[in-house]
Amino acid sequence: MRTVVVGGGVIGLATAWRAAREGVSVTVIDPAPGSKASHASAGLLPAINDQLYDQPELLRLCLASRELYPSFVEELEEFAPAGFRRDGVLDAAFDEESLPILDRQLAFQKSIGVRTERLTAEECAKLQPAFAPVVGGLLSPDDGAIDPRVLDAALITAIEALGGSVVRRGATRIEDHTVVLDTGDKVPFDRLVLAAGCWTHQIEGLPAGAIPEIRPVKGQILRLRSDVPLLNVTARAISKGKSLYLAPRLDGELVVGATYEERGYDETVTAEGTGSLLRRAAEVIPEVGALRFAEITAGLRPASPDDLPVMGPTTVPDVYLASGHFRMGVQLAPVTAVAMAAYLTDTVPHAATAPFTPLRFS
Amino acid sequence: MRTVVVGGGVIGLATAWRAAREGVSVTVIDPAPGSKASHASAGLLPAINDQLYDQPELLRLCLASRELYPSFVEELEEFAPAGFRRDGVLDAAFDEESLPILDRQLAFQKSIGVRTERLTAEECAKLQPAFAPVVGGLLSPDDGAIDPRVLDAALITAIEALGGSVVRRGATRIEDHTVVLDTGDKVPFDRLVLAAGCWTHQIEGLPAGAIPEIRPVKGQILRLRSDVPLLNVTARAISKGKSLYLAPRLDGELVVGATYEERGYDETVTAEGTGSLLRRAAEVIPEVGALRFAEITAGLRPASPDDLPVMGPTTVPDVYLASGHFRMGVQLAPVTAVAMAAYLTDTVPHAATAPFTPLRFS
Repeated sequence: MRTVVVGGGVIGLATAWRAAREGVSVTVIDPAPGSKASHASAGLLPAINDQLYDQPELLRLCLASRELYPSFVEELEEFAPAGFRRDGVLDAAFDEESLPILDRQLAFQKSIGVRTERLTAEECAKLQPAFAPVVGGLLSPDDGAIDPRVLDAALITAIEALGGSVVRRGATRIEDHTVVLDTGDKVPFDRLVLAAGCWTHQIEGLPAGAIPEIRPVKGQILRLRSDVPLLNVTARAISKGKSLYLAPRLDGELVVGATYEERGYDETVTAEGTGSLLRRAAEVIPEVGALRFAEITAGLRPASPDDLPVMGPTTVPDVYLASGHFRMGVQLAPVTAVAMAAYLTDTVPHAATAPFTPLRFS
Repeated sequence: MRTVVVGGGVIGLATAWRAAREGVSVTVIDPAPGSKASHASAGLLPAINDQLYDQPELLRLCLASRELYPSFVEELEEFAPAGFRRDGVLDAAFDEESLPILDRQLAFQKSIGVRTERLTAEECAKLQPAFAPVVGGLLSPDDGAIDPRVLDAALITAIEALGGSVVRRGATRIEDHTVVLDTGDKVPFDRLVLAAGCWTHQIEGLPAGAIPEIRPVKGQILRLRSDVPLLNVTARAISKGKSLYLAPRLDGELVVGATYEERGYDETVTAEGTGSLLRRAAEVIPEVGALRFAEITAGLRPASPDDLPVMGPTTVPDVYLASGHFRMGVQLAPVTAVAMAAYLTDTVPHAATAPFTPLRFS
């Protein structure tokens, strides 16, 4: 069974790796693997986010992926380091009006069995001394973050080590069980996975409506650097009810994100995007100004018509879809990859993935 | 007469070009010509700045260079475009407290014969519609700016076209009328010009005290981009008594600068430097947020012990110096280059350069 995966972002690569691990012969096609949304992503892995309070099926999917993450990383690290840290996520409130957000989150996390500790202002200051004064916090000690750039590189290494291949070309159309490359060459497949983020529905040669439109939601994200990490743990800084993602890496990189902008396929980084992230970072980390400015990047998150992930078989025989993960691609990579590998080996996918079938748009 | 110029910034390159033009055989030595202070510089060419009110000799030097600029550019453009624009510099005051700065500047410019027009708020808005409301302005129609990156590239082209050469290596020491490169190779000279900015005094092999210490003054500078230029003319935006340099290029680049920081040889760009330039730009140009973030760069301005330029023969026979131009290297390149070429051809240099002899530090 020759399986071709179109799209070398975190979803396509993770799917290919898990399939290769099950003995499937895989080829990933991407002009520049790991260079788009997952290259921009901060890679935060919090247990929950706002979207999950009233989306029980999505919550179940997220918790399944969270459950899978440690073993997924452990198995991947047989090939290469994955950049995973699971030393806690701190949610810190910087004003009184943001405290109810913590209260709600604490109650919710407890109700679903996620270990969570309420921290006083003093405890927050002790854990994260670089923060401006906070009014209170939550620590979720079993959560953390992953560096998506390290993760993507590890996945490529693992795919190739298992005999799979990564073809660094663009895919233009599907034709008679082949993927036609931008060179004109054709790559034959028995099964095809489309995982090209917000470019997924642009591939030609499939019946109209077979693939839902996956729209781009732009995110600008900032990377600063210091010789020694300024923050000790992954955090979300909440002020005026809004949350800023802060992902410190052990090598001194600090990722600050992100904006949400509906601007079509525009991938430009702007003065406003850069300035607003710098300003918000400076509000919560007084010394952040001394850090080196390393990078401002824009990524396009892939959002399906109902903003929920799409994974599984389509109406077209032998054509599968894994996309639409919006802001949770890195978080949902393990559960998506394991489910897709199940489809590709004709076994039963994780039950949590069933509601996310592409067939809901047909 | 073999002349070697150590340092391929705007001062070294301009000196080499003018010398080559007079028939001198020149070699410029620089590991990366045009990559340091002049690469960062905005290239504003205003008639005057604050420093000139009480520095009559420096004023005379600046006015001499301003006088030379059009013919300097015209002659250089026989080889390549120089990126010069002389369509006016607008000084705009954004608050009442900054108006006296304009009054003083107007009176001063008139007293020295620099054409200057007082503009009302309405006239400023008409000239530069992208500006936030201003309270008043000055237009100096005979002034402008140059793109230092284009200028440096043109100078290299001109030097090579005239038979000179640019050796892309580091110079480590002076030894028996040769410059010893980092490869160990030696480049012989009859006369030597040291023009290596804040690295000038670090070259070894000269008697102690022959070269004054040239200290680095860091400047961070921002480059934004749009398809169509947002600003029509070069400007200084004055608010709360402080001036922000704005150099729009015809290709849509907008250079915003700069910070002044005494931090030794630290060339890092910081979150604070980037954030403050973005914030100040947004205060005076409301739509600036939509521009693409192109670049944040740091340059090290070379400052002599008295913060004034240094040019001419040193106490060491056949060794000349051209450095210490601080924030006016691009502005003073023509007068410096013409004076240095005069020294190198045993003719009389421009009288305005006499006070800037290196011998004042001996």
